[in-house]
Amino acid sequence: MRIRLPSRLGFLGWLLFAVVEAQVQNQDPLPSWNDGAAKQAIIKFVRDTTTPSSPNFVPPEQRIAAFDQDGTMWVEHPLYTQLVFALDRVAALAPKHPEWKTTQPFQTVLSGDKAAIAKLTMKDLEAIVMATHTGMTVDQFQVIVKEWISKTKNPRWNRPYTELVYQPMLEVMKYLRANGYKTYIVTGGGQDFVRVYAEHVYGIPPEQVIGSALETHYTYNSQGQGILMRPPKLIINDNFSGKPEDIYLFTGLHSKAAFGNSTGDRQMLEYTQAGGGAPLMMLVLHDDAQREDAYGPAKGLPDTKVGSFTQALYDEAKSKGWIVISMKNDWKRIFAFEP
Amino acid sequence: MRIRLPSRLGFLGWLLFAVVEAQVQNQDPLPSWNDGAAKQAIIKFVRDTTTPSSPNFVPPEQRIAAFDQDGTMWVEHPLYTQLVFALDRVAALAPKHPEWKTTQPFQTVLSGDKAAIAKLTMKDLEAIVMATHTGMTVDQFQVIVKEWISKTKNPRWNRPYTELVYQPMLEVMKYLRANGYKTYIVTGGGQDFVRVYAEHVYGIPPEQVIGSALETHYTYNSQGQGILMRPPKLIINDNFSGKPEDIYLFTGLHSKAAFGNSTGDRQMLEYTQAGGGAPLMMLVLHDDAQREDAYGPAKGLPDTKVGSFTQALYDEAKSKGWIVISMKNDWKRIFAFEP
Repeated sequence: MRIRLPSRLGFLGWLLFAVVEAQVQNQDPLPSWNDGAAKQAIIKFVRDTTTPSSPNFVPPEQRIAAFDQDGTMWVEHPLYTQLVFALDRVAALAPKHPEWKTTQPFQTVLSGDKAAIAKLTMKDLEAIVMATHTGMTVDQFQVIVKEWISKTKNPRWNRPYTELVYQPMLEVMKYLRANGYKTYIVTGGGQDFVRVYAEHVYGIPPEQVIGSALETHYTYNSQGQGILMRPPKLIINDNFSGKPEDIYLFTGLHSKAAFGNSTGDRQMLEYTQAGGGAPLMMLVLHDDAQREDAYGPAKGLPDTKVGSFTQALYDEAKSKGWIVISMKNDWKRIFAFEP
Repeated sequence: MRIRLPSRLGFLGWLLFAVVEAQVQNQDPLPSWNDGAAKQAIIKFVRDTTTPSSPNFVPPEQRIAAFDQDGTMWVEHPLYTQLVFALDRVAALAPKHPEWKTTQPFQTVLSGDKAAIAKLTMKDLEAIVMATHTGMTVDQFQVIVKEWISKTKNPRWNRPYTELVYQPMLEVMKYLRANGYKTYIVTGGGQDFVRVYAEHVYGIPPEQVIGSALETHYTYNSQGQGILMRPPKLIINDNFSGKPEDIYLFTGLHSKAAFGNSTGDRQMLEYTQAGGGAPLMMLVLHDDAQREDAYGPAKGLPDTKVGSFTQALYDEAKSKGWIVISMKNDWKRIFAFEP
């Protein structure tokens, strides 16, 4: 942990600095991690890039680390949280849309038939997201998400979705921030959705959440005041190549560390590695059916499907020196609420 | 100025804090401003929004202030700096493009005929920007801009463009940052161009520069490493309505203060005002022909032209309580190099 002090503070400042430094060095920054290659790689990365005499030293202003969200920071199966939100919104909005009773894909959603819902296509889901996320101001959307996320529980754990965050990953974020890194969420999910809770859940301010985004349209309300409306048009698709492209668009910087869990994160990890120095590329592998879920590496799945940890991705990781995090072996504890 | 200290530091921390606080309070934060309504409005805004007991208090995480660049932070006449760069690039690239000798608008640029160059249309300029800003990686573009900006001088002042920055505005940025505000550049110019020098010139890191942007395209070089190429396609046009839309896209926040100098900044100021509380909206008026330039308010100019301070904008400012900064009357000093 470094605290930057004005040099004119002299001795007082250095004393203070030394006190903090000593307190911090005595603590294990990653207590929810088992000792092993993954934990060691993270600690080595921080030492390599923040020690001024290191050949791989990264100046503080260039220290950015990118984290995928779904499946990397919190539970994503059986449904992305934002999709649960969208399905709930269909039910909430149904009284105003009597036509949905006989229009697909809404009819299927309203039927409550889980097997049929699980079979909805990407095109269906897109129609559902557009119908539930647009046609309002950006402020109205925030209010709706805020209310939903504070009230809704995941049925398997019977806890709010915001508690289903991986404690070991929160520790990595905190550890990196304590060493001068800016942590970014870089998600295929909607940035407007994630920004509502990112500060509270991850300690990440809204301006460090990069994600898929709808266009906004500046116009005026009946009092002549400027407002931003949400028309149904996607302008940023933050998956696959979109991830390195959007990190560049939003920051102008090259990520020095990147964490993902699926083919949608591949290009982000590749580009992080291409930046040279001693970068850190990590993939969370869901191999713990008992404590969370086990769905990778998945043989036979196409690499173009978002959210899958394919065998090809696993092989690429091994050949390029990316670290695969085994939830089962590397994580002592998965959730903060566990004993 | 606030320094956040871990509470466990107790007395030592508070002593340190008190020392810094006392030093800061004795200084005029805006020494290059004459006393007057503009200077007082800035000081009142900071007091109103950062005093915890104020009804208009803004929590630190919501403190963002947006600054247009050209004409607000530095000289924009007779040509935007980035346009000078583009014209210089045409000359530099001409040997590789013999066809430009007989192709417009390049032929005009290469002729050096200033009167003809001044008459180039927006479409011509767009063609020039595309031809000079694309077809390379993002890293290559940065190197080119960095070299150009460090070597090129503005002919009127015979100084680097990066010295033609308005000292009073730098003081406003510094003052806001010292009070917990994040300062953003929100420019119609290219964000990739501005990010090269923004830290050095304004103390603003690249991730706080929002501007017009070209698409980037993720692909691989001959060694199989990921690279970001720049194809000739504009994806963000950060003017007019684009400014509030892009502030929202990049930050998810509502700007609390906004500084501009032309019709291209109107919507940004309107939307800042619509956020409620005690926001600050300011427009720099170029009315000092002797020390810099005088070109506003301009009667008869259409409001759709980028970069003009029209009479209609002036009237809107007066009716809505936006503060018009008179360079002639409000600024004691314009440039840092002045005595």
